[in-house]
Amino acid sequence: MGNYKLVLAYEGTNYHGFQRQPHLPTVQGELEEALERVASPTSPLYAAGRTDAGVHAKGQVVNFHGTLRLEPAALPRALNALLPPDIVVVSCQEMEEGFHARRSAQSREYAYYFHVGGSPSPFYRRYTFHVDGELDLRSMEEALQIIIGEHDFASFCRHEEGKSTVRKVMAAGLERRGELLAVRVRANAFAWMMMRMLCGSLLEVGRGKWSPERFRAVMAARDNAGCAPALPPQGLFLEKVTY
Amino acid sequence: MGNYKLVLAYEGTNYHGFQRQPHLPTVQGELEEALERVASPTSPLYAAGRTDAGVHAKGQVVNFHGTLRLEPAALPRALNALLPPDIVVVSCQEMEEGFHARRSAQSREYAYYFHVGGSPSPFYRRYTFHVDGELDLRSMEEALQIIIGEHDFASFCRHEEGKSTVRKVMAAGLERRGELLAVRVRANAFAWMMMRMLCGSLLEVGRGKWSPERFRAVMAARDNAGCAPALPPQGLFLEKVTY
Repeated sequence: MGNYKLVLAYEGTNYHGFQRQPHLPTVQGELEEALERVASPTSPLYAAGRTDAGVHAKGQVVNFHGTLRLEPAALPRALNALLPPDIVVVSCQEMEEGFHARRSAQSREYAYYFHVGGSPSPFYRRYTFHVDGELDLRSMEEALQIIIGEHDFASFCRHEEGKSTVRKVMAAGLERRGELLAVRVRANAFAWMMMRMLCGSLLEVGRGKWSPERFRAVMAARDNAGCAPALPPQGLFLEKVTY
Repeated sequence: MGNYKLVLAYEGTNYHGFQRQPHLPTVQGELEEALERVASPTSPLYAAGRTDAGVHAKGQVVNFHGTLRLEPAALPRALNALLPPDIVVVSCQEMEEGFHARRSAQSREYAYYFHVGGSPSPFYRRYTFHVDGELDLRSMEEALQIIIGEHDFASFCRHEEGKSTVRKVMAAGLERRGELLAVRVRANAFAWMMMRMLCGSLLEVGRGKWSPERFRAVMAARDNAGCAPALPPQGLFLEKVTY
């Protein structure tokens, strides 16, 4: 009996999100099915981030208790042979009994990728949101600074009954590489739809339709009625979870 | 009446190559169908490179004669609205009467992309060939130098009845960026399967199974019996055509 941590990468395009749902393809469903052939789990699978339908992950973390039929180091290759090619187990490690992928996580890092270029690209279309014309990066940076710290993100999320919308953002910034622009945010946790709604409003700033001050006012209102439309899932990646 | 040059990018995954074939999805088939709605072509579509099934293009060039129902500058957007998202028209330009996408081309540049990393990646799988473990880049560079110049590439292609296998390679080199390794070759033209067969043998050199001298000897034999297996199509991109 042990407690095992897996790091996963997956393309979310063909899944109805991470979390298992009856009769629908999910990352958890595929992973649990493969796991049963190489391990005997005695607990559910706990995940650091509950990625929505179409959202990708480079560094999702899950854990489960149980026994393995192989050495931990041999598990990734065995699982990858059983899993569809859009889900990859990067590593497997035995952890102390108390480790919990969700509750032990200190921060999550998500990135939303824009493709800023004249023509949409057949290669980026599954992994980015295409923006026609240039963006005002300086104003976007200015707006991003506003979210750093502990804030109520009620304006930039879908509310879940009885759940707080206060989160602590440790870092937020832009990264430009050629035609790709990433909005990278690290926080203790993310409210539901937070990145896609934040980035939708940030895009209005980038396009010059909103000033950073309007962004600040929308955030201060703590009401998502003022938020710009959420961006589609394919630009969003769960990049990394830190413990 | 005019002669129009289009630059195209496409993901080849879902097509049986560029060239039209009855009852099979092809890039040419999709493009001609879309073109008929915005233009009246009076010639076939000529293409600079006949990419095989599963091969991608960032800069394929085609031309056709006929009349447009819009300005050339408006054609890309109109065509992209009609085309599936894995085929994108990047630009349209009116050319002099004698321009021919294939015959006027001075050189083609192809790149074959390897993903050199521990785990296969769900994001690179459609666009790279995954290699487990490190490659000897210095020996690969040495072997690549051998192909520069005018040579008979009979060892590194599938023969087509009555066609010469002599080609002139202007440039060949490696590009490493993180876990991606590109083999980039520019030549006046490429023989059938030449890049995938060249790169298959180059991979043997990179893995230390072949010396650069063996690569040289295989090439000098002008017989593809000595060639290593061709690599799969998904790592290959037609990058650019120069006129």
